[in-house]
Amino acid sequence: MSLLVRGGTVVGPTGTQVADVLVDGERIVALFDPGYRQPVQADEVIDASGKYVIPGGIDAHTHMELPFGGTAASDTFETGTRAAAWGGTTTIIDFAVQRTGEIVQDGLAAWHAKADGNCHIDYAFHMILGGVDTDALKAMDQLVADEGITSFKLFMAYPGVFYSDDGQILRAMQTARDNGALVMMHAENGIAIDVLVQQALSRGETDPVYHGITRPAALETEATSRAIALAEVARDCPLYIVHLSASGALEAVAAARDKGRNVFAETCPQYLYLTLEDQLGAPGFEGAKWVCSTPLRSKHESHQRDLWKGLRSNDLAIVSTDHCPFCFKDQKELGLGDFSKIPNGIGGVEHRVDLVYQGVVDGKISLERWVETIATTPARMFGLYPRKGVIQPGADGDLVVYDPNGTTRIGVATHHMNMDHSAYEGFEIAGHVDTVISRGTVIVADGNYHGRKGHGRYLRRGLSSYLV
Amino acid sequence: MSLLVRGGTVVGPTGTQVADVLVDGERIVALFDPGYRQPVQADEVIDASGKYVIPGGIDAHTHMELPFGGTAASDTFETGTRAAAWGGTTTIIDFAVQRTGEIVQDGLAAWHAKADGNCHIDYAFHMILGGVDTDALKAMDQLVADEGITSFKLFMAYPGVFYSDDGQILRAMQTARDNGALVMMHAENGIAIDVLVQQALSRGETDPVYHGITRPAALETEATSRAIALAEVARDCPLYIVHLSASGALEAVAAARDKGRNVFAETCPQYLYLTLEDQLGAPGFEGAKWVCSTPLRSKHESHQRDLWKGLRSNDLAIVSTDHCPFCFKDQKELGLGDFSKIPNGIGGVEHRVDLVYQGVVDGKISLERWVETIATTPARMFGLYPRKGVIQPGADGDLVVYDPNGTTRIGVATHHMNMDHSAYEGFEIAGHVDTVISRGTVIVADGNYHGRKGHGRYLRRGLSSYLV
Amino acid sequence: MSLLVRGGTVVGPTGTQVADVLVDGERIVALFDPGYRQPVQADEVIDASGKYVIPGGIDAHTHMELPFGGTAASDTFETGTRAAAWGGTTTIIDFAVQRTGEIVQDGLAAWHAKADGNCHIDYAFHMILGGVDTDALKAMDQLVADEGITSFKLFMAYPGVFYSDDGQILRAMQTARDNGALVMMHAENGIAIDVLVQQALSRGETDPVYHGITRPAALETEATSRAIALAEVARDCPLYIVHLSASGALEAVAAARDKGRNVFAETCPQYLYLTLEDQLGAPGFEGAKWVCSTPLRSKHESHQRDLWKGLRSNDLAIVSTDHCPFCFKDQKELGLGDFSKIPNGIGGVEHRVDLVYQGVVDGKISLERWVETIATTPARMFGLYPRKGVIQPGADGDLVVYDPNGTTRIGVATHHMNMDHSAYEGFEIAGHVDTVISRGTVIVADGNYHGRKGHGRYLRRGLSSYLV
Amino acid sequence: MSLLVRGGTVVGPTGTQVADVLVDGERIVALFDPGYRQPVQADEVIDASGKYVIPGGIDAHTHMELPFGGTAASDTFETGTRAAAWGGTTTIIDFAVQRTGEIVQDGLAAWHAKADGNCHIDYAFHMILGGVDTDALKAMDQLVADEGITSFKLFMAYPGVFYSDDGQILRAMQTARDNGALVMMHAENGIAIDVLVQQALSRGETDPVYHGITRPAALETEATSRAIALAEVARDCPLYIVHLSASGALEAVAAARDKGRNVFAETCPQYLYLTLEDQLGAPGFEGAKWVCSTPLRSKHESHQRDLWKGLRSNDLAIVSTDHCPFCFKDQKELGLGDFSKIPNGIGGVEHRVDLVYQGVVDGKISLERWVETIATTPARMFGLYPRKGVIQPGADGDLVVYDPNGTTRIGVATHHMNMDHSAYEGFEIAGHVDTVISRGTVIVADGNYHGRKGHGRYLRRGLSSYLV
Repeated sequence: MSLLVRGGTVVGPTGTQVADVLVDGERIVALFDPGYRQPVQADEVIDASGKYVIPGGIDAHTHMELPFGGTAASDTFETGTRAAAWGGTTTIIDFAVQRTGEIVQDGLAAWHAKADGNCHIDYAFHMILGGVDTDALKAMDQLVADEGITSFKLFMAYPGVFYSDDGQILRAMQTARDNGALVMMHAENGIAIDVLVQQALSRGETDPVYHGITRPAALETEATSRAIALAEVARDCPLYIVHLSASGALEAVAAARDKGRNVFAETCPQYLYLTLEDQLGAPGFEGAKWVCSTPLRSKHESHQRDLWKGLRSNDLAIVSTDHCPFCFKDQKELGLGDFSKIPNGIGGVEHRVDLVYQGVVDGKISLERWVETIATTPARMFGLYPRKGVIQPGADGDLVVYDPNGTTRIGVATHHMNMDHSAYEGFEIAGHVDTVISRGTVIVADGNYHGRKGHGRYLRRGLSSYLV
Repeated sequence: MSLLVRGGTVVGPTGTQVADVLVDGERIVALFDPGYRQPVQADEVIDASGKYVIPGGIDAHTHMELPFGGTAASDTFETGTRAAAWGGTTTIIDFAVQRTGEIVQDGLAAWHAKADGNCHIDYAFHMILGGVDTDALKAMDQLVADEGITSFKLFMAYPGVFYSDDGQILRAMQTARDNGALVMMHAENGIAIDVLVQQALSRGETDPVYHGITRPAALETEATSRAIALAEVARDCPLYIVHLSASGALEAVAAARDKGRNVFAETCPQYLYLTLEDQLGAPGFEGAKWVCSTPLRSKHESHQRDLWKGLRSNDLAIVSTDHCPFCFKDQKELGLGDFSKIPNGIGGVEHRVDLVYQGVVDGKISLERWVETIATTPARMFGLYPRKGVIQPGADGDLVVYDPNGTTRIGVATHHMNMDHSAYEGFEIAGHVDTVISRGTVIVADGNYHGRKGHGRYLRRGLSSYLV
Repeated sequence: MSLLVRGGTVVGPTGTQVADVLVDGERIVALFDPGYRQPVQADEVIDASGKYVIPGGIDAHTHMELPFGGTAASDTFETGTRAAAWGGTTTIIDFAVQRTGEIVQDGLAAWHAKADGNCHIDYAFHMILGGVDTDALKAMDQLVADEGITSFKLFMAYPGVFYSDDGQILRAMQTARDNGALVMMHAENGIAIDVLVQQALSRGETDPVYHGITRPAALETEATSRAIALAEVARDCPLYIVHLSASGALEAVAAARDKGRNVFAETCPQYLYLTLEDQLGAPGFEGAKWVCSTPLRSKHESHQRDLWKGLRSNDLAIVSTDHCPFCFKDQKELGLGDFSKIPNGIGGVEHRVDLVYQGVVDGKISLERWVETIATTPARMFGLYPRKGVIQPGADGDLVVYDPNGTTRIGVATHHMNMDHSAYEGFEIAGHVDTVISRGTVIVADGNYHGRKGHGRYLRRGLSSYLV
Repeated sequence: MSLLVRGGTVVGPTGTQVADVLVDGERIVALFDPGYRQPVQADEVIDASGKYVIPGGIDAHTHMELPFGGTAASDTFETGTRAAAWGGTTTIIDFAVQRTGEIVQDGLAAWHAKADGNCHIDYAFHMILGGVDTDALKAMDQLVADEGITSFKLFMAYPGVFYSDDGQILRAMQTARDNGALVMMHAENGIAIDVLVQQALSRGETDPVYHGITRPAALETEATSRAIALAEVARDCPLYIVHLSASGALEAVAAARDKGRNVFAETCPQYLYLTLEDQLGAPGFEGAKWVCSTPLRSKHESHQRDLWKGLRSNDLAIVSTDHCPFCFKDQKELGLGDFSKIPNGIGGVEHRVDLVYQGVVDGKISLERWVETIATTPARMFGLYPRKGVIQPGADGDLVVYDPNGTTRIGVATHHMNMDHSAYEGFEIAGHVDTVISRGTVIVADGNYHGRKGHGRYLRRGLSSYLV
């Protein structure tokens, strides 16, 4: 079975070029100049003229079915990957979880069990380490060597749940420095935050907005700086900051990068578009929809402008979603009267490609950076390149035909995520995912879904390309 | 006539992939997965297995036949472009010159006259503005619109020769801001330097090393900061700093980039490998070989380490040569007894690809950054992309097959530049330019030269890709 | 004749203490603990209980009778020093002027001629060098050695009038580095500003507000950074930035100080209280009253907040007035229809002590910093210490009894400067100058003036205390 | 009883002045100009001509009799204060200690019991909080209100002993913000350090030098930055960093101060003169003499130069000793074979005034900064001003006559501290403590000791002068 995507404008990290892309079986086998008389016949031809052809999106930060706060994220691997596919994402990297006291490999096995046979698109795992000890450090080596898991997430927040102290962080970083893995960090000073949370609650400040107020930007900045310092002590262990939302944290990352350090960061669409005042501070309990950590930041500060700047300058390397959906009914409502009990998370796996493209339309980033931040860099950062994230011979046939003249309206009435609300309700985006191809199979076309559960395969990842 | 480069490891800015590259006539028409049964027959097949295939090098800073200090750079467009070809560079961007009192277009015409019919490889021009006035500003518009010249170099040094004052710089930047051109800046405070030079000479400090001592890094840093400030006043006019050599100047560039400014910089191989003490300070008049501006910097400071860091982090975007060769005999010797009379310039157009590759071997930059800094970014920065700088269908068939197992020894006995000495005499580089292809024609192969004068064509350039 | 100031709270740079101050003749001869049974009888006793006793103010930046733009500053040494006295200032340091082509010593002689016998309070001179050449450099040495003039002001603005190019600046700094003098700098990029001014005028932008718009903060920041760089090249010549008004310039000064450099700066009351929008942008030609250079800055940026912060942290060492008054009628009106013809200057020598004290009342600086910035530091910075600026035995009997419970209303109806308007019309300040003593003579008391022209003496200054 | 110190050069924070100082009883009652015919007769006259007269030194950081690591600091309040007096220090502020689980007030009572009746000079207490909980926070209020204790030290190091986590730190800072107290911080990341220590020991790295190697500068810098961030979250609670030794930590302090934050720091003589290589890395177990925390830093980095720079620029406000002496025999020897068991501490209370004066001789700081950093600023910072730290009427009669022409040789043979070795053995300092006067009583003169145990009184301190 072969497929020719003809006449589209192929967008890559360094520019655009009109080219024909030939997929044979599951992989791209050739790129042709459209003016070249091509000697091939494809079984199927897709006309992409006037449209962009980009590598399938890679969402490097999702939490399908994540147990959290007495409930679980509302998207299963099945519903979540299907929604991702609708939005032009053809690979996710989800987080398998080790909690304190658990065996790392058991956590991984549990995640495999959830995902196996259920995914619509390819998937890989990072591993969350919630209990760094000698066994867990050994497990890091084993996962890198045998399981294709080459990135490990630690938490400076959530004491008693996922929290690692600075000694545990240092030891994990030292191990990663030796085995080539990448340490990912949730950088918020959770010990200090918990004091602020208890003080707020004791003052009767229970509304969702206090979730944000008790997690000030200064404590994200502090933790980011600390993680960078610990990585330096661990002989310059490479470091990746997840869901960066604060200007100060970005400054810390940029300063480290200016010194030549291998420090990277991602942000998420929610931090680029939503604010503490307008969403998290919505009247009554409405704001609970936007309770996530790191929290939405104040519109009276320069966070959003700075994050876009960071995306432009590559101090922010990647846009992921931190997709962790909870329904308002019964789930978010667990925190009625106590914001600290609201499950943390926003769903957005379906909208990332569009929301970042809007930045191109708005003149905030270039087309090249769009592709780089949503596909190419995630592939390189997390050891999926050149199989994913690039349109060139040998790569998987993961392609999105994107219509710059289309329009995307976001809302609960039309989205495919398992959520009873949308964080972006009513957003109208210039641009539209037209056709989605996963390993040579068209799974979205003409507004219809053609994919299937089980099509997605587990991806063993190599080391990050940046860690040389 | 078609040409298939088979089995090589294609290196691009985001990674490597084994692929076959098909050139038909002058352009690349297809890339194939080697495992794909290709339906094409090529007239000629080059076996690149075990070797790198990279886009032909682009040297964005050369001065062929430049009149300077009572003499002229010793490479003509013919000898210089031939030497460039030997070293894997298939495009140069030379500087046409307007001196004070001259008409810009006359200067351009003079440069066309020198180059036309004489070049072995493709070439383009930047324009040096040595006399910014109302006519020159109009000429900027005309050159951008009609001549394919989209970058203009100004000098903060060389009062009375090329120097522009801050008002002239501001006006040129404003004009560039409007017509989309890129302002390139020689950033040294020439007014202050001239005082130091006269003071040194009056103290009898006439040896070549005083050329460097009287051009302290602080005055490069100052001028770089000033250029960045003037560009800000010119409504954030994009800016490109040439031949950056000082750590402080790099810090200024990095700080501007952290703020989201379109500020870019190049460095040159001489600053990455040579020093004020070891070369410029050689006994007697020997150091004259290394008199260039900005000067070689002290090895007792961290300049070289910082420049490599900047190349890694993209705060330095490009490596050019500032190729401006003068023979020692009769030319450099003009400055015997007075360093200020030594013609400023170092020749290196032939060695750039190798010298930067050595940084890969030494673990200082990645393969990807090698290709990016010597080919892809110059093409994007100076409006030659996607015709040049990238291996993809539609691009010109400018290719270099590079042998990582080869060795290159640099010296006057073997080089092809018209110089009676080499700035890098005795350097031995791991890696070797194996085959060079220019617009589909093999011009270097098997240690022999197959190119010819007149093969090279003038390239009209578009606007910089970075200036969106 | 002896005078005892009894029971006041003496305020010094490190704190406050209730003490009696005994002046005998012209100098302070003793300080007593009020509880100590004092064995002295004074001819006159002033009861200062409940009030502050501070050293007489030193205004280190005034321009009496300065010729400028076809007119001259409206305060003579007689009227200006009398107004100063009314406001608690007992010493001024005015600027003698050398214009291009003039002999430095002639300029000094001219200023002595204006001031001699006319001053109500003590006075000293800085020297403006408007034409740095070999003779002027020699004159610097002579003035330091013989004339008690140890600070020299250069201009990076006003091309053709006071402007020095970077080479002249460098040479003057080298000379100062050797003879111990302090270089003062008007730091604005006048070459670039003149381009902006001409462009504005050619667009018909002639109102006073364009004076500010054509002198953007970025060009003050640039010039400040450049002056700091040139001083570094001049073997770390100490440097003093006058009338600093922009946040960015303050950052440049702070950064230099963090590196241990002897870089100092003053600001002026106008930058602490007035803004581009509210004053300079007043309707019609009204804004001409506030045309001064550096200009008032935008209230939409953080300049004022940052300047107060700088005063608190000592990155701003001194508050001077840059007193350079012009009447609105006939003088400011010279610029009707062309802002570039409005004489530059604001009068304020009478109000500095009060305006800075208001910062104490507002909680922006401490009492100690008040005294330090208006008296002690000017004395130390400009070689008048310990004769001036401190209350201790041996110092001149220059004292101000300041009533923190008083009130000062500023306005043309009550001020004593020779101006037909006030830059601070209607300001009401908490605090009041109660009694002013100059070299042991009460010159202001009970709301009456007791001083006289000719009382003030010329002060030969020593080297700056900071330049060790 | 009255005492006249006649003809000396009184050195204060803003300059020098020859003056006579009259002490009546315990306090200074008058300062006279020497040329003034003084109407007083003193019981005793000290001729200070040709010498400096400075306020008695204040050592704001001592640990007399501190239990640590199974032993106790070898100087009692009796021996330690006597040694201090010999060296020109007339006030110490020692640290009372609350350990985890103890009641704060009990710790204070224990320290009073040790000191009461035993001190040769005046003394005050800071309080170490080793167990921040609700009771301890209440105790902070009580100690500020009732006990004259207005500064509280927390530890980010020493887990299980003194360590506070970030939540405890935040709560203590919030309390201090409200009651006006100053939080002092031992800023080292002890959690990470403990990992490095255990790893070193497990590799057999047991020599004293590993004490320093396992406490890298990066972890002091990190903790300093974190403390500053936590203080910001605590509504800009003022903060004082103790024993700052690393350049990076100084940069963090300077950056906070540039932003207008009330962040202060002290350093100690050991960091100004001694290094990891030359002292801590002495052969065999010899280096144990210099085991202290923060540790001595590498001479291959710029720490010492930067610390002197910080003293000059006031980013370092104070020089204290962190006097915590242990004998080599039996005490330091507890760590034979395991550096982590070496009691941490260096003795130096006797030498601070001389060692900082050497910086004046070496041209690193001015005379004014000498007095400011050893006496005036400690008094202001810790609520002892204007009783201490200044020579003016009303202040205590604590004076040192310092002979700039004298010489001081440091060594165990001559020092008065209860130590069997000296950290500065063989140092020869230009300058000598000539006469020491405590509250009007001469306690050191003519090389003899005239003081007595019990002369020293407990000082109730007010709030810091800087915290307005």
